Amino acid sequence: MSTGPVDLRGVIVATALPYKENAKAPAGLEVDYDKYAEHCDWLISNGCRGVGPNGSLGEYSSLTDAERRKVVQVAVEAVAGRGVVVAGVHGPGWHQAKHWAELAAEDGADGVLALPPTMYRASHAQVVEHYTKIDEVGLPIMIYNNPIDTKVDLVPSLVAEIAQLPNVSAIKEFSGDVRRLFEIREQCDIDVVAGADDVLFELMADGAVGWFAGFPNVFPAESVEIYDHMVAGRFLEARELYRQLVAVFRWDSRTEFVQAIKLSMDLVGRYGGPCRPPRGPLTPEHTAQVTADTERAVAALKTYRAVAV
Amino acid sequence: MSTGPVDLRGVIVATALPYKENAKAPAGLEVDYDKYAEHCDWLISNGCRGVGPNGSLGEYSSLTDAERRKVVQVAVEAVAGRGVVVAGVHGPGWHQAKHWAELAAEDGADGVLALPPTMYRASHAQVVEHYTKIDEVGLPIMIYNNPIDTKVDLVPSLVAEIAQLPNVSAIKEFSGDVRRLFEIREQCDIDVVAGADDVLFELMADGAVGWFAGFPNVFPAESVEIYDHMVAGRFLEARELYRQLVAVFRWDSRTEFVQAIKLSMDLVGRYGGPCRPPRGPLTPEHTAQVTADTERAVAALKTYRAVAV
Amino acid sequence: MSTGPVDLRGVIVATALPYKENAKAPAGLEVDYDKYAEHCDWLISNGCRGVGPNGSLGEYSSLTDAERRKVVQVAVEAVAGRGVVVAGVHGPGWHQAKHWAELAAEDGADGVLALPPTMYRASHAQVVEHYTKIDEVGLPIMIYNNPIDTKVDLVPSLVAEIAQLPNVSAIKEFSGDVRRLFEIREQCDIDVVAGADDVLFELMADGAVGWFAGFPNVFPAESVEIYDHMVAGRFLEARELYRQLVAVFRWDSRTEFVQAIKLSMDLVGRYGGPCRPPRGPLTPEHTAQVTADTERAVAALKTYRAVAV
Amino acid sequence: MSTGPVDLRGVIVATALPYKENAKAPAGLEVDYDKYAEHCDWLISNGCRGVGPNGSLGEYSSLTDAERRKVVQVAVEAVAGRGVVVAGVHGPGWHQAKHWAELAAEDGADGVLALPPTMYRASHAQVVEHYTKIDEVGLPIMIYNNPIDTKVDLVPSLVAEIAQLPNVSAIKEFSGDVRRLFEIREQCDIDVVAGADDVLFELMADGAVGWFAGFPNVFPAESVEIYDHMVAGRFLEARELYRQLVAVFRWDSRTEFVQAIKLSMDLVGRYGGPCRPPRGPLTPEHTAQVTADTERAVAALKTYRAVAV
Repeated sequence: MSTGPVDLRGVIVATALPYKENAKAPAGLEVDYDKYAEHCDWLISNGCRGVGPNGSLGEYSSLTDAERRKVVQVAVEAVAGRGVVVAGVHGPGWHQAKHWAELAAEDGADGVLALPPTMYRASHAQVVEHYTKIDEVGLPIMIYNNPIDTKVDLVPSLVAEIAQLPNVSAIKEFSGDVRRLFEIREQCDIDVVAGADDVLFELMADGAVGWFAGFPNVFPAESVEIYDHMVAGRFLEARELYRQLVAVFRWDSRTEFVQAIKLSMDLVGRYGGPCRPPRGPLTPEHTAQVTADTERAVAALKTYRAVAV
Repeated sequence: MSTGPVDLRGVIVATALPYKENAKAPAGLEVDYDKYAEHCDWLISNGCRGVGPNGSLGEYSSLTDAERRKVVQVAVEAVAGRGVVVAGVHGPGWHQAKHWAELAAEDGADGVLALPPTMYRASHAQVVEHYTKIDEVGLPIMIYNNPIDTKVDLVPSLVAEIAQLPNVSAIKEFSGDVRRLFEIREQCDIDVVAGADDVLFELMADGAVGWFAGFPNVFPAESVEIYDHMVAGRFLEARELYRQLVAVFRWDSRTEFVQAIKLSMDLVGRYGGPCRPPRGPLTPEHTAQVTADTERAVAALKTYRAVAV
Repeated sequence: MSTGPVDLRGVIVATALPYKENAKAPAGLEVDYDKYAEHCDWLISNGCRGVGPNGSLGEYSSLTDAERRKVVQVAVEAVAGRGVVVAGVHGPGWHQAKHWAELAAEDGADGVLALPPTMYRASHAQVVEHYTKIDEVGLPIMIYNNPIDTKVDLVPSLVAEIAQLPNVSAIKEFSGDVRRLFEIREQCDIDVVAGADDVLFELMADGAVGWFAGFPNVFPAESVEIYDHMVAGRFLEARELYRQLVAVFRWDSRTEFVQAIKLSMDLVGRYGGPCRPPRGPLTPEHTAQVTADTERAVAALKTYRAVAV
Repeated sequence: MSTGPVDLRGVIVATALPYKENAKAPAGLEVDYDKYAEHCDWLISNGCRGVGPNGSLGEYSSLTDAERRKVVQVAVEAVAGRGVVVAGVHGPGWHQAKHWAELAAEDGADGVLALPPTMYRASHAQVVEHYTKIDEVGLPIMIYNNPIDTKVDLVPSLVAEIAQLPNVSAIKEFSGDVRRLFEIREQCDIDVVAGADDVLFELMADGAVGWFAGFPNVFPAESVEIYDHMVAGRFLEARELYRQLVAVFRWDSRTEFVQAIKLSMDLVGRYGGPCRPPRGPLTPEHTAQVTADTERAVAALKTYRAVAV
């Protein structure tokens, strides 16, 4: 249900995590908290509603427990009340997810993003238990359907069951099957949030009320602009812009999405940098394609700006 | 490309095929050509652009060769120039598909609908050869992407290659992945046609220019109305109607779609009737669900009409 | 059950079908019945138990109805009572499969091989109905589990149900999951037949009592020899030979199996020749690999013979 | 290659992990190290070659880092040199897997079992890097192919590449596709180990030289007996016993394998007990089936013993 004090709507950015080289750090890469703070600040300054540390894009599963906690603390401090911080609390079992949610609450996050059990084909009852335990912490919850990465598909009937928990507010839909939106909305009143950049247009046309994904790391202001068009029902205006960006947005749904978004950040003058294992460098072919897709998006935005003025 | 003399846009109905009992006919069911002619006439009279005999919905693979040909002849005669007849020419090999296309041309059809090879995981080169041979016949071609039913996925790069054939005009997209539309349009100018009823709204929001599917067999006038709203950019009006029909539309994407649409036809006072093998009767659970979904759609339409007046 | 007058055990060859060029024939290829008769005779002369016309390997779905029937007639005449003829009666609906079974009976075949409905995800009840109707014809039936090519998986509990039909004698297991054998045997006493060349060793070790597949078209005598070793419990002797042939046998489980087996036939001095659409020529890479795998098998057999003498 | 000082052949048991209730422990369950030590001792006393702590069966991903390390230490102490300890070092990235391997070495383990990156569809190059880094630790490595649980399939060509690392000794094959064995052996000389209980017979018939899986937790002495029969080429004797146990062995390949094996342990008078999240209790249906399958196996073994004597 979405009647809690804090909703999780709007453009919330699944933040990428910058590293700096340090031979003594895991895999030779130390989390660069300063750069991360600066990035969170920049996103908020560019109109985003909030940031989402420790999502898949934030490489949470490659961090130590201490690093993972500090990432949230840095985000909370950087956002400083100007937006929401929605911390990823993904884990194999609820005892782990709930632990991360407790730390998030203690550290001042505004909400949590939670996959079902990440490494086990949990039954519906076990998925409901997983969210029930996280719900006990009291923070608003965005559940996350990602049947490509987990073994569980949060099908509409299951969503409706989970949505009865008092703090469950929204679902980040990443299944790629946009038909889910109408079906979910027939069964409950949870907020549906576009969870992949390359179905943003269709899901918002259907009635999604949020966008939690990757490319706003690269184009925050323009992302907010598309989002606002859609919310206002200016679908054709949004489509005209969207169709020129969607080629690069597609990288958000590909295996190499973290590396691709970091490269795209580098290309537009931000800092993306390398990933920790298991994410290695992009192949030359992928690098070339991300570059071409980013450049095409940048050029389209330039034209758009010129016309808009 | 879509520059041929006849485009295949608009609402074209993949027609269901009525049978009557006859112990001597295959599986005890004889094709009822009279009822079929009446149905084609009714669809055109209700504003549909055309009819599509011998699609999957028309149970083409359960017919004898003679029956399959006659179905097209009856459709052509019934439509009588008031709309287009787009005949299904699906077959395992191109020698078979081309043969059906030749008969369609001889019998006065306006275009053909063609799956890739139906029973073999054909390579891209073999798929292109398949369509090249059908293209030689000269009728406008709507290619059909249905990776759920065939073993071949007409991915955007392959579509772009096939679209270079002079008579290929449109693609019926049934993959369920609406992301395909923008990607196809980036690579070629083929007309994209919504090929499943339950992604109609999203695909038309994206820019589809036709609808070739099933539930217009049940609700032809209302289907045309939704379609016209979308073409005119009245997305919110279309959505309001669509979201109340989409529950029944979902049956178009389910295994039992032929039986479900025939039952839905029966429920609204038309004639659907039984199917030939392998399609057996719906289970009681399915029957109840189709009935509930149809009744909900009918009620929504009644309210809509009342408000519209 | 396997108590009927004719069992379908032993090495039965899913026969490849030779064509000769003829511009007026479908796709320019006419069935070469003389060569086909000679091939059937050669297989029987080399110790095979029987032949299986109109299997997938026999390209049944690319034939006209008249050709399909004549292929069985030629096989029956060529075998002339020295072995069994097991005709493929695959079809989308039971009315079609039963029709082919009736013709097979009329034309003197000894049994039929039958897939479940080939193009529809039939329910268990519909699959049972399919076989029930074929069973009425009276010929011994080998059911065929090929969930890679059809949409239906004949899981052990379904096999047990079908096995209650009086004429169902055996199951050709092609799922690739050898675990099925013990599970099927726990539930019924149907004969399990190795249905893919590259699981022959494991399935016979488990207790399979037949081999119905492809590479005996190329190596009939040696195939019978491996089979006889297994039946006699000489597993280590069989394994020594099998492990040197299995690389070429793997082609029986690949998409291009028809083309590959025909090439392999050409390479050992038999006639394989081209395929009708949709099966195009092998790519150069595939041609090279089939050639290498065939040559390795031939060399291994030569060594084996030298040692055996 | 398998020339290192310690091979990883024979029956090595992926040990289940016992818990005791403790409201303050994660999910209310504290690891019962005493019971675990006793279990390791019992397995070695019953003829098993070794134990494998921190496999999937050992619920490694539900443990804290401290618990995970101590489990290995307890196993090493309990085995006390009478067999081998092969520690699971699974992790999302190599920095994590290598860290666990370093601790295993420090704590006296004899080898490690390592999945590829567990949560990412790593490229072949990234998989090779993962194992290269683990290899630097110096312990013998059993790589683990489990494409059902991870996103990576260690196909034979990739296995051959990894097998060139100096400490890679064996592959635990869990894909379920027994065809892999011959194909792997054609490409390299790595030891193939049966990695699922319900393909043990087929893989050992093919030439596997080890068994690393679950039901030896329940039936260690009898498992060793089957194994020894196979190694000695007494396939028919092994099959007679195996076919009566395989119904319960199948639980090793099911989603609920941990719960099922623990229940089976309880049923034969050992201690299995509950699991940590995400693994909840078995449904009543599953409980009944595991019970029936275990009881059937026990009865078969009783008969076998009576006859053997």
